[in-house]
Amino acid sequence: MSATATNNERQTEVGNDTRLHKAKRFPIVDTDVHHSFFDKSDLYPYLSDIYRDRWADYGTGVGTSTAHNGGFRGRRADTIDVEQEQPANIGTSAIDVQDTIDRLLDGAGVDVAILTGGPMGGASAMMDIDYASALCTAFNDYSIDTWVAADPRFRLTLAINHQDPEGAAREIDRLGQHPQVVGVMVSCGAPKPFGFRSYHPIYEACVRNGLAFAMHFGAEGSGINPPPTSAGYPSYYIESRQARPTFYMAHLASMIFEGVFEKFPTLKVGMIEGGFAWVPPMLWKMDLDWKGLRYQVPWVKRLPSEYVKEHVRFATQPMEEPDRPEALKHIIDWMSGEQTLMFATDYPHWDWDDPAMTLNGFPDDFRRRVFFDNAVDTFGLNKNGEMDRLLSEVAG
Amino acid sequence: MSATATNNERQTEVGNDTRLHKAKRFPIVDTDVHHSFFDKSDLYPYLSDIYRDRWADYGTGVGTSTAHNGGFRGRRADTIDVEQEQPANIGTSAIDVQDTIDRLLDGAGVDVAILTGGPMGGASAMMDIDYASALCTAFNDYSIDTWVAADPRFRLTLAINHQDPEGAAREIDRLGQHPQVVGVMVSCGAPKPFGFRSYHPIYEACVRNGLAFAMHFGAEGSGINPPPTSAGYPSYYIESRQARPTFYMAHLASMIFEGVFEKFPTLKVGMIEGGFAWVPPMLWKMDLDWKGLRYQVPWVKRLPSEYVKEHVRFATQPMEEPDRPEALKHIIDWMSGEQTLMFATDYPHWDWDDPAMTLNGFPDDFRRRVFFDNAVDTFGLNKNGEMDRLLSEVAG
Repeated sequence: MSATATNNERQTEVGNDTRLHKAKRFPIVDTDVHHSFFDKSDLYPYLSDIYRDRWADYGTGVGTSTAHNGGFRGRRADTIDVEQEQPANIGTSAIDVQDTIDRLLDGAGVDVAILTGGPMGGASAMMDIDYASALCTAFNDYSIDTWVAADPRFRLTLAINHQDPEGAAREIDRLGQHPQVVGVMVSCGAPKPFGFRSYHPIYEACVRNGLAFAMHFGAEGSGINPPPTSAGYPSYYIESRQARPTFYMAHLASMIFEGVFEKFPTLKVGMIEGGFAWVPPMLWKMDLDWKGLRYQVPWVKRLPSEYVKEHVRFATQPMEEPDRPEALKHIIDWMSGEQTLMFATDYPHWDWDDPAMTLNGFPDDFRRRVFFDNAVDTFGLNKNGEMDRLLSEVAG
Repeated sequence: MSATATNNERQTEVGNDTRLHKAKRFPIVDTDVHHSFFDKSDLYPYLSDIYRDRWADYGTGVGTSTAHNGGFRGRRADTIDVEQEQPANIGTSAIDVQDTIDRLLDGAGVDVAILTGGPMGGASAMMDIDYASALCTAFNDYSIDTWVAADPRFRLTLAINHQDPEGAAREIDRLGQHPQVVGVMVSCGAPKPFGFRSYHPIYEACVRNGLAFAMHFGAEGSGINPPPTSAGYPSYYIESRQARPTFYMAHLASMIFEGVFEKFPTLKVGMIEGGFAWVPPMLWKMDLDWKGLRYQVPWVKRLPSEYVKEHVRFATQPMEEPDRPEALKHIIDWMSGEQTLMFATDYPHWDWDDPAMTLNGFPDDFRRRVFFDNAVDTFGLNKNGEMDRLLSEVAG
């Protein structure tokens, strides 16, 4: 997107621009597609009686944000049918499967869409962890029956309740072998950062099932979670957006300095919708501090930046737009972006990135890694050779 | 400092290397020198009876950090006299005025040392705001009598209690016209970020007295303050260091998007001991988001990066050390570092930066701005022409 695009211009109709779609030489994997249900009742069949009543009467009881959003209620206006959706119920995730297929998969030329949810972002912030886990389970079953079954191009990250690591591990084992399940998804808002020992059963289950562990901002300062910043709550949405990179920074430092990647040498971590320009400065700081302080954390055996390059992948959206175009190239170079970046649209959010307008100034081999290879490796998409087949079709 | 220096090598004896000192063509202003008292009893003369007893029996009651530190109890080992200081009482700030004069001013060639305190970092995190304000007042009086009076090269930032903005404004008015008082200093840990309206009496008082408003990490997650990250408490010191930039990011976004710089067009803000490589990515993000969302904050009339370039200055220490040397030059270029950076040693902390070994690869005019001019402007050091005189002496 151009740095000077207005709010409305950003809400480009997908399908109007199929330049990349028609000319592309590699498949496009989209690592952040927000999906939801049309109505709370869609989850009723997947809930016990007592939780169904509670869900009907109260919902999650925690929001994932208390702020004004951008676009039209946080979404691209063209993805909302105001006749069909009551304004008060409009969330920021896509609710219409066929519309998403038309606009995103067919329209924007996305070949593999990794569903990242949204409505269960607050589950881990609830006081009642059994109810929270039941909601995640219901949402996963609903997602498989309604979204994953509708199109072979969909892949699913499982909603899990990170407050209940043993329960989350059971949920991962229950669905982790489904051929279209490729990862788990948690909200960054949490009482403790993700390197903490209590979370390790989740990583064991991810590794056991060959799934990526992905995180997305959400639920910071909601429910039982601490406020979004060390100085409490921002006043405005635009202000809260500036805190987003910091949510990921806390977890990244924690996972590295608690030794998660030494303990789980095959674990892959996806950081979704956090942007990435903040990464190189943090790598420098972690490496420098490790040189001076590693005697305090002897289980951290390598430079922090080496763990990041091997284990952690960053979704491209929302891409920072430096005022000097060469800056983005340097940032990407310094973080080994050819290895660490994965493309994401963030569909259907108002500030989504159209694949046809993303990273066009970069060489083809770099683009292929970011739009395809890195996501294939991170989410294990080629377990049965299906990505090899897709690649031959597209690159043909 | 070299990126490969070990912990011990970092504790260079000041005075062993006077290359810069002897050859320098401009004075050196050090914007971060931590000072303290030798013993709690040093503050007794400045406290009322009831608060003196409480101070003697309980201290502040809140720590500024719960973590293991670096070096020897957080300090350069050579600044600690273990015969004189009981190990359990050793804090991270300098307690010996003459030793600081010898090692830092004479030894390292610092011409103006801005005292930034340390021991009152937790005052704003206390439940009893009157006691907290009384401690700040006592520490300021002690600092003037003991440090500022000892050498004309010392300048003082006043410890204030940001929890009590009206009381803080009174303290600023009480001492703000002292010729060696140049700013106020607050800890970043806070219940609300610093753009919030309740803090504005502090900015009014700073502007009224021609003082800079400076912040330094500290007291995040202590006392009444929220945890240091949106995911709670880090486990290790090295991990907590990675969160430091995020403390400043929250306040910077808040001050810009609450319109502080529109309301106080002459206010200068110093961000001390937060490093600076994180700044350009944040400027890009704020500018981009402002383009898309400014209709929600119409009182923000300019690009966020323009406010930063005009109002906000970043102390250089702890300087990030990219693995590719050209990266630091780009980062500095992208943040207009010739305008926005101010040198700091962070004396006597273990990871201090020696002026003789800092930014040596940069041109002289850039170095003069960073080591001298920018701090002079930010802290109004030349109100009576004293910096003009110093410059002629040093530059000859």
